[in-house]
Amino acid sequence: MTASAKPLPAPHLGEPYLLTPGPLTTAFSTKEAMLKDWGSWDADFRAMTRSLCDQLVALAGDSRGEFVCVPMQGSGSFSVEAMLGTFVPREGKALVLANGAYGLRAAETMRYLGRAYTLIDKGDYMPPRGDEVAAELDADPAITHVVAIHCETSSGILNPVAEISEAVYSRGRKLLIDSMSAFGAIDLDVNRIRYEAMVSSANKCIEGVPGFGFVVARRSELEAAKGNSHSLALDLHAQWAYMEKTGQWRYTPPTHVVAAFLEALRLHAEEGGVPARGARYTRNRDVMVDGMRGLGFETLLKDRWLSPIIVTFFCPADPNFVFSRFYELMKAKGFIIYPGKLTVVDSFRVGCIGRMDEHVMRKVVQAAKEALAEMGVASAAPPEAAIAERARLAA
Amino acid sequence: MTASAKPLPAPHLGEPYLLTPGPLTTAFSTKEAMLKDWGSWDADFRAMTRSLCDQLVALAGDSRGEFVCVPMQGSGSFSVEAMLGTFVPREGKALVLANGAYGLRAAETMRYLGRAYTLIDKGDYMPPRGDEVAAELDADPAITHVVAIHCETSSGILNPVAEISEAVYSRGRKLLIDSMSAFGAIDLDVNRIRYEAMVSSANKCIEGVPGFGFVVARRSELEAAKGNSHSLALDLHAQWAYMEKTGQWRYTPPTHVVAAFLEALRLHAEEGGVPARGARYTRNRDVMVDGMRGLGFETLLKDRWLSPIIVTFFCPADPNFVFSRFYELMKAKGFIIYPGKLTVVDSFRVGCIGRMDEHVMRKVVQAAKEALAEMGVASAAPPEAAIAERARLAA
Repeated sequence: MTASAKPLPAPHLGEPYLLTPGPLTTAFSTKEAMLKDWGSWDADFRAMTRSLCDQLVALAGDSRGEFVCVPMQGSGSFSVEAMLGTFVPREGKALVLANGAYGLRAAETMRYLGRAYTLIDKGDYMPPRGDEVAAELDADPAITHVVAIHCETSSGILNPVAEISEAVYSRGRKLLIDSMSAFGAIDLDVNRIRYEAMVSSANKCIEGVPGFGFVVARRSELEAAKGNSHSLALDLHAQWAYMEKTGQWRYTPPTHVVAAFLEALRLHAEEGGVPARGARYTRNRDVMVDGMRGLGFETLLKDRWLSPIIVTFFCPADPNFVFSRFYELMKAKGFIIYPGKLTVVDSFRVGCIGRMDEHVMRKVVQAAKEALAEMGVASAAPPEAAIAERARLAA
Repeated sequence: MTASAKPLPAPHLGEPYLLTPGPLTTAFSTKEAMLKDWGSWDADFRAMTRSLCDQLVALAGDSRGEFVCVPMQGSGSFSVEAMLGTFVPREGKALVLANGAYGLRAAETMRYLGRAYTLIDKGDYMPPRGDEVAAELDADPAITHVVAIHCETSSGILNPVAEISEAVYSRGRKLLIDSMSAFGAIDLDVNRIRYEAMVSSANKCIEGVPGFGFVVARRSELEAAKGNSHSLALDLHAQWAYMEKTGQWRYTPPTHVVAAFLEALRLHAEEGGVPARGARYTRNRDVMVDGMRGLGFETLLKDRWLSPIIVTFFCPADPNFVFSRFYELMKAKGFIIYPGKLTVVDSFRVGCIGRMDEHVMRKVVQAAKEALAEMGVASAAPPEAAIAERARLAA
């Protein structure tokens, strides 16, 4: 791997690495791009917006002008709501595929919007599969759109969007993808995976700082979506139409965050685009998971569904293990980890994304080893009950 | 004025001054605060959020714990929509007071929400007055809330919110204020002006960078607003309840923008708070307007309604004056000005807010003088028709 040949530099100002699914550790040059003020109406900034959109459409693989990019202020969840409110018509019905918090949030968003939806909830361990989607679509002809989560960061599971897409389009329905934590590192090329729109945000695999999300959508579908939105601010059609006309964002953009994102895009291209970014994250995951397993930790998921984005580990059964103490010890050693988001068993998560490489991941494992020793935890093995639960639910 | 004694430093990286109503020119130290990555779940960042909210409630003058601050991702318009969707109940009715684009946008937001509203539209030249509001409220008992724009930056008019507030509460109704471009420089102390909620954003008179807005609201009113929102992302009650419980933002916050805002708040306090900030902006306006009038320019508004935020000037009648050329000449001299937002007459705007002082404003006037000479504009006097229109409409 090229990434392993030359270690990436550590955070310049000494802050801890963020082993979290975004905000994440970004390059110093990305943050340095925020040291200027930009006029949002000015031609220089309009050119920056144009470049940002062009590059994101290219990352999605569109070369025929069939897709457009619409950036949207706010966190990624704002863009998800914008996508759902704009593309699922008021008389439509969505099938939401959930296996964690983000799928459930999409369903909650539909409830807020007062639009019809049905839910397939797979729990924490397993992905929704193409045949399940096909069966649901066959059973309910009212469903117009399917909403899928690409990587569900609650568990770190990588969902099989390609087979889901095939099921959806073979039944003449439309697919909307929340690829928040995956786009830029995992293939979502429109020539290989069919969809109408996908959403991601600045502070994920492109390694920008948080402040806006974006939707890459089929132009014809967006044109047809006029008047659907429940919200003025989150109306993707209106945002796009205004941008087409003026080159500007409809309302004040996070100018500094946009400038940072352009530098992040430059670094993404320099590294080798989606394949290279994905390869570095995969190497990060493999080195980290191997090392953690060596300490006795076990992953929530089978290897098959482990994403290169974030990995969930069971908390050790040892009564000396207290997560808040483990968190503080890891932070003191320079690593901020992430609490679990499961309801049934205690867990924590370690992210593999951001400006870091396998050299850093080895230090993460070493820090975990030291932290366990300092806590007096002899074995990182999970409770028997967690293993039994996993065996039962992930059968 | 203390501000005039020691000139503020110019932009460190040589970018033009932004004579715009936000994004605006910020202190270099404000931007430098963005050079670190922060974990949004971490205790350090939670403490930053807590400090931000506490300081904003204090700026609003609340010392009895009756008000709370709810920051909201996105541009200021996102926070306005969040305020309207959260505080105007589904069975409520709003009276929107408009005299420019922002008042009309509030009405458009109500239309999107499908909630009842009525509009007083005063055009571009005049503010809505207390007696007009009182008459409308007397005539329509269905109105539950009044929505007022504090400073309408379309024209730069400063609306009389104190007398509007008196009219509203004397009729037993409730006031919501869009103080986007005024809060932090113009008095909106809850002990002097009664209201239920006000909204502003990071990149206005506090002089932060864009990326979030905030609502300062009466706690009891917010508690009663559960379930009102049309939007998950823009649900202020849910945002607040989650923050109360966890200390975290509900969805990913713009961490770097928040760090910058804390530095901006520090500089705001150091300068002397709202009175000092307002005094500097007022001096900026007076120096700039005097100078521009000396060149023959005329303001859209009478002195009485000129805000210290942004000033609209008529474009000169001279056929050699072309706004796009004037804009480029001004930019080349280091100043980005703002196009007009009026429908009837040609105009442009010059902002008085941001990290700049009267020394800068003198250079702005000098630059305008040179630009006129380079364009071959002999007089900056506006067309007779514009003056006649002003006399008719501002009578």
